[in-house]
Amino acid sequence: MEGVDYLAGERKKAEFDVQAMKVFRKDDRTMLPRKELFKQTLRKAAYAWKRIVELRLSEEEASKLRFYVDEPAYTDLHWGMFIPAIKGQGTEEQQQKWLPLAYKMQIIGCYAQTELGHGSNVQGLETTATFDPHTDEFIIHSPTLTSSKWWPGGLGKISTHAVVYARLILDGKDHGVHGFIVQLRSLEDHSSLQGITVGDIGMKFGNGAYNTMDNGVLRFDHVRIPRNQMLMRHIFISDAILLVSQVTREGKYKQSDVPRQLVYGTMVYVRQRIVADASCYLSRAVCIATRYSAVRRQFGSQNGGPETQVIDYKTQQSRLFPLLASAYAFRFVGEWLEWLYMDVTRRLKDNDFSTLPEAHACTAGLKSLTTSVTADGIEECRKLCGGHGYLCSSGLPELFAVYVPACTYEGDNVVLQLQVVARFLMKTVSQLGSGKQPVGTIAYMGRIEHLMQCRCNVQKAEDWLKPDQVLEAFEARAARMSVSVARNLSKFANPEEGFAELSADLVEAAVAHCQLIVVSKFIEKLQQNIAGEGVKQQLEALCGIYYLSLLHKHQGDFLSTSYLTPKQAALANDQLRSLYTTVRPNAVSLVDAFNYSDHFLNSILGRYDGNVYPKLYEAAWKDPLNETVLPDGYHEYVKPLLKQQLHTARL
Amino acid sequence: MEGVDYLAGERKKAEFDVQAMKVFRKDDRTMLPRKELFKQTLRKAAYAWKRIVELRLSEEEASKLRFYVDEPAYTDLHWGMFIPAIKGQGTEEQQQKWLPLAYKMQIIGCYAQTELGHGSNVQGLETTATFDPHTDEFIIHSPTLTSSKWWPGGLGKISTHAVVYARLILDGKDHGVHGFIVQLRSLEDHSSLQGITVGDIGMKFGNGAYNTMDNGVLRFDHVRIPRNQMLMRHIFISDAILLVSQVTREGKYKQSDVPRQLVYGTMVYVRQRIVADASCYLSRAVCIATRYSAVRRQFGSQNGGPETQVIDYKTQQSRLFPLLASAYAFRFVGEWLEWLYMDVTRRLKDNDFSTLPEAHACTAGLKSLTTSVTADGIEECRKLCGGHGYLCSSGLPELFAVYVPACTYEGDNVVLQLQVVARFLMKTVSQLGSGKQPVGTIAYMGRIEHLMQCRCNVQKAEDWLKPDQVLEAFEARAARMSVSVARNLSKFANPEEGFAELSADLVEAAVAHCQLIVVSKFIEKLQQNIAGEGVKQQLEALCGIYYLSLLHKHQGDFLSTSYLTPKQAALANDQLRSLYTTVRPNAVSLVDAFNYSDHFLNSILGRYDGNVYPKLYEAAWKDPLNETVLPDGYHEYVKPLLKQQLHTARL
Repeated sequence: MEGVDYLAGERKKAEFDVQAMKVFRKDDRTMLPRKELFKQTLRKAAYAWKRIVELRLSEEEASKLRFYVDEPAYTDLHWGMFIPAIKGQGTEEQQQKWLPLAYKMQIIGCYAQTELGHGSNVQGLETTATFDPHTDEFIIHSPTLTSSKWWPGGLGKISTHAVVYARLILDGKDHGVHGFIVQLRSLEDHSSLQGITVGDIGMKFGNGAYNTMDNGVLRFDHVRIPRNQMLMRHIFISDAILLVSQVTREGKYKQSDVPRQLVYGTMVYVRQRIVADASCYLSRAVCIATRYSAVRRQFGSQNGGPETQVIDYKTQQSRLFPLLASAYAFRFVGEWLEWLYMDVTRRLKDNDFSTLPEAHACTAGLKSLTTSVTADGIEECRKLCGGHGYLCSSGLPELFAVYVPACTYEGDNVVLQLQVVARFLMKTVSQLGSGKQPVGTIAYMGRIEHLMQCRCNVQKAEDWLKPDQVLEAFEARAARMSVSVARNLSKFANPEEGFAELSADLVEAAVAHCQLIVVSKFIEKLQQNIAGEGVKQQLEALCGIYYLSLLHKHQGDFLSTSYLTPKQAALANDQLRSLYTTVRPNAVSLVDAFNYSDHFLNSILGRYDGNVYPKLYEAAWKDPLNETVLPDGYHEYVKPLLKQQLHTARL
Repeated sequence: MEGVDYLAGERKKAEFDVQAMKVFRKDDRTMLPRKELFKQTLRKAAYAWKRIVELRLSEEEASKLRFYVDEPAYTDLHWGMFIPAIKGQGTEEQQQKWLPLAYKMQIIGCYAQTELGHGSNVQGLETTATFDPHTDEFIIHSPTLTSSKWWPGGLGKISTHAVVYARLILDGKDHGVHGFIVQLRSLEDHSSLQGITVGDIGMKFGNGAYNTMDNGVLRFDHVRIPRNQMLMRHIFISDAILLVSQVTREGKYKQSDVPRQLVYGTMVYVRQRIVADASCYLSRAVCIATRYSAVRRQFGSQNGGPETQVIDYKTQQSRLFPLLASAYAFRFVGEWLEWLYMDVTRRLKDNDFSTLPEAHACTAGLKSLTTSVTADGIEECRKLCGGHGYLCSSGLPELFAVYVPACTYEGDNVVLQLQVVARFLMKTVSQLGSGKQPVGTIAYMGRIEHLMQCRCNVQKAEDWLKPDQVLEAFEARAARMSVSVARNLSKFANPEEGFAELSADLVEAAVAHCQLIVVSKFIEKLQQNIAGEGVKQQLEALCGIYYLSLLHKHQGDFLSTSYLTPKQAALANDQLRSLYTTVRPNAVSLVDAFNYSDHFLNSILGRYDGNVYPKLYEAAWKDPLNETVLPDGYHEYVKPLLKQQLHTARL
C-alpha cells in the first residue's frame, strides 16, 4: 500500500494555511521583497533563540539548530565571529566583562574588518584608533571614504557592538592593525550612537540567498572608546600578522613574542569547517540533480513507450557522477581535516609546531579546491536539470547564490593557492636534499627521485583500479609540476619577480597537490573497515570516478610530465565509463544516503518521492503575479496599447 | 580641465528626483519586488512602442531600441517568435488575416511549444488538437498534467494569442505535432477565455533578470478553434521534423514534400543571432571586470605607497585576458556567421543545398560553444571583481542570471554538440575517401592524411605566432579526435549503442572542431585590412591569447594525439604569458572600444570614469532596508531578545 496517505482525510479538514503557520518555512523566501525577507529572518532568529533558551541547548546543539534553519543571519556573526574574537583576543578581564552579555544576547556583535577599498589585505586597512592620553581613550575614525567598513554581516541593521579592526596610532606612530570593541547602537532605542554612520550595503546576488543578511557599511567620526576596549591578548588577523600587544595608561606600546604558529591553528579550524560545508552544499545540489535526472525523460522513446530517463545518458553521467563522487570525497577529506585540527591542537599543547606549516598549507589549499569545485558544481547541477533548474522552486539558483561567496571569503581561492600552497611547495622543493624530511600530505616529496623517474605500469583498463598505481600517478604529476616550476623560477635573478611572472603555473601546481590530497584521503578511507552490505563497493566505484575523472580532465598534466602514455590515458577513460555503469543503478540511493529532508533541500525537483510535476504546477500559482488575473499595470500600459490609444495615454 | 562638470551648478538647482523620472532606468531593478518589477517592464514596453509608432521606426530600428531597453519582455516573443511563426508557417490567407493585427499590436502573441514534462524533444509533446468534422473545428486539449504548456515567455499575464504546438488527431489517428493559432484572453477585458487556465510559472534565477518576463503555464480544456487556425504552410520545429501539411474540410490530411533542408535555414538564422548576443554579453562582463581590475588595488604596497592594481597580477591576467580575447573572437565569428547565413539564403534561392548541412552543424556548434563560454565567463568576471562583484550594484549577478538560459534554449548545449555536430563529424569521417569533398569549416578533413601524420614544427616560443602553424595544430587536434572516436565507434556492433556509450568523447571532439572554427575565423579576420593605428597589432595579440589559452587548457588533447611534444606545449605557455604583457597597457582601452554607455552597462564597478567607491557608497543607501533606521521586525523580534523578554513575546 505504498503511496497511500492514511491521514489525508484529516489534513483536508484543516481550516487554515498550514504552510503560513510554519515558522521556519523556506519555500516563499525567493519571492519576498527585501524588507519582508529580512523581517522573516529576524523572526526565525528570535524563535530559534527562544527555543535554544527554553530547551537549554548547549552551544554545539544551538549551532546545529542554526544550521538547520539554513538561512544566513546576524546570529552567525555574533556566535561565529564576535564571540570567538573576544575569546581569542581579549584579556581575562575583557572576557569576563563582555562574554556573559554576549552569551545571553544582551548585546549583539559583529566583526568589522574589511573596508570599502580593502578586502583580503588586512595590512592595508585605513580606519584609525588614535590614543588620547588625556582621557585614556581611543578615538576611532574613518579618515577616507575607502576606509568605510564594508561587508560585515549583522552590521547593517542589527548589531549593537562590533569588533573593529583599526590602525593603532600612539603619539603619531602607526603600530599596525588591532581589534577594538566598539558600541554602535543604543541598547535603549537601537539608534546609532554619536559619530557613527551605519547602514546596509544593498542587494546581493540571487533571490533570498544572502539577502537575509544585513551586510553593512560603517563610518566613524571621531568615536571615543575607553582604553580597555582594545583587545589586548593577541591579535591575529591574516596569514601575515601576529601581535600580542598592549597599550599602557601612558600610551606606551608593549608587544610580546608569541609563536607565530599559533595563528595557523585558528585558520586551520575555520578552513576545515569550510571544507565540511563544501561537502554539504555540493551534496545538496547533487541530490537534487540526481533525483530529477531519474524523474526526467527526454528522447529515445521506442514505439511510443516512455522516453529515456536522462540519468541513463552517458553525457549526463559524465557530468553528474564526478560531482556525486566529489561530494563524497569532500566529506571524507573534511572528516580527516577535523582529525588533523585535533592533532595540531594536541601538538601545540606540547609545544610541537613541526606539523603546523604543512597543516596550514593543506587546509588553505583544500578550502580553495573544495569551494571552487562546489560553486561550479552547483551551477553544473542546475544546468543538468534543464530549463526547470532555472526556476527558483528548483532550489538550485538560491543554493548557488548563497554559496559562491565561499570562494572569496576566508582567503580568495586563487590567492590561497598561490600565496600559501605554492609558496609552501616551492619551499619544500628547495629543501629537498637538505636532510629535512617532508611530513604529512607533502611526505611524497621525500621520494622525489623515484617520482621523477617512474613510468606508469598500467596495461589494461582495470589496472586503474589499483590504489597504489593511482597514488603514484597523482604523486608523480604533483611532484613533477612543482619541480618543473621551481626550475623555471630559478632562472629569474629576482625570486619575487619570478614568482609573480610564473604565478599561473604555480597555481596549477598547487591545485595538483591538493587534488592528490583528496584522492589519497579517499583511498585511505577505503582501506578501513566499512560496515553495511555493498557500501564499500559503491564507495570504491565513486573513488574511482573521482580520480579517473580528474585524470581525464587534467590529462595534459599527466602527459606533459611524461608519466603516462596516451594509450594509458585512454584506458583510464575506458575504466571511467565502466564505473559510471556500476554507479548508475545506485545513484538515487547514493544521494538518499545524504539523508536530507525535503524541507532542508527546499527543492521541488529534488523531492524524495520524485513527484515533481504536480508540485511544480502547484507552486507556480503561489507567485505574487498570480494573485490577480490582471497584472498591475495592465490598465495603464497594456490596454491602451492593444486599443491603439497609446498616443493619449500617460506613461 | 578634465573632470570639471560645467553644469553641476544647474543640476544642483533641480527640485525633483531626476532618476525617478527616467523611464528606462535600470539601477533599481534588482530591488523591486516581482509585481512592481513586472509593472515597470510593462511601462517600458509601452513607452518604447509609443516611441516606435511616433517615430515610425522600421522593424530593424525598433528591434535595436528594444535591445537597448535591455530587459526581457513579452514584446521579445511577440516580435521574435509569434510573428515569425505566422510568417514562416502560415498560408497567404493566414498571414493576411493575422499579421496586420500583430504588426499594430492589436493582438499580442507568444510561442507555446514546451510543456511541463517536455522540453527539447518536440516529438514528445502531449497537447492534442483533434479535428471535429461536424463543426469544422479543432479541439485543443491538455490531456495530462505534464502536457501543460510551461515556460513560454509573454504567456503568463500578457499575451492575447499564442501559436500552440499540439498533436494533430484526425479520425483517431495521430499525425504528429503541428502549430495552431489560439486566442487565450479576451480583447475586451483581458480575462482568460473559456477552457483556458493560464498563469505565471513563478520566480526565476536572480534579482531582476528574467523575472521581468511572464513565462507562463497554460492548460486547455477542450478549447475549440476554427480549422483555418492550423498553420498550414510548413511546419518546422526541431532538427527532426519538417512537414508541409493541410487538413481539408473533410478532415483529410495532406502532406507535401518540401526539401528538408529548408528547416536548417531558419535554425542557422536564429543561432547566428545567439552567437552575436554571446559576444555582446561576454564583452559587457569583461568590460566591467577589466575596468574594476584597473581601479582595484590589493597587496604589494612598497614603503607605504599605493597597493598594486590587481590587473597587474599574472593570475588575474591569465583569467581575464582569455575572456577579453574570447569576446573579440566571438564578435568576429558572429560577423562571419551573419555572412554565412546570407550565403546560405542566396544558395537556397538557387536550389543549391550543398553547403547547408555544414552550415547547420557549424552554427549549432558555435551556439553551444559561445553560450557556454559566455555563461561561465560572466561568472568568472564576477569572481575577478572580488567581494564587490557579489553586490547587485556591480551588475554582474543580474548579467549572469539573465544570460544563463542561453545554454539551454534553442537547443541544449550538450545535446547540440552531440546530436548535431558530432553526428556531422562522424558522417564526414565515414565519407572520407568516398570522393565527396568536405566543404566550408570542415574542409580540413579533406587533408586528413597529412593531418594524421604531421608533427608540430615549433622550436621557439615566437613560432606560436605563425598562423599556419596554429591552424595546423588545431586542425590536427580536431581531426585526430574525430578519427579516434570514429575508430572506437566502429568496434560496436550496434552503431547507436556505440554512439550512446561514447557520447562524452563525441562531445569533446565536437568542441575541438568548434574551437578550430573560431580560431580560424579570427585568423582570417586578421588577414584583411584593418584600419586604425595599432589596432591590428592588438587584435593579433588577442588572437594569440585566444588560441594559446585554449591550447594550454586543452593541452591533453594536443599531447594525447601526439601532435605536440611537452616542450612545445611549454613554449606555447611562455608565449601566452608574453602576450599578456603586450595586452596589459591596452586592456582598458580594449574594453572601451566595445563602446558601452554607463547606462547600458548598469554597473558601478564598470563605470567609464573608474569612480567606483564613492558611487558604491552612494548606491548602498538606496536599499529598501535603509529607508528606516529600525528595520521592520525590530520591535517584535530584536528588542525582546536584547531585553531578555523573549519568553513573553509573541513570535
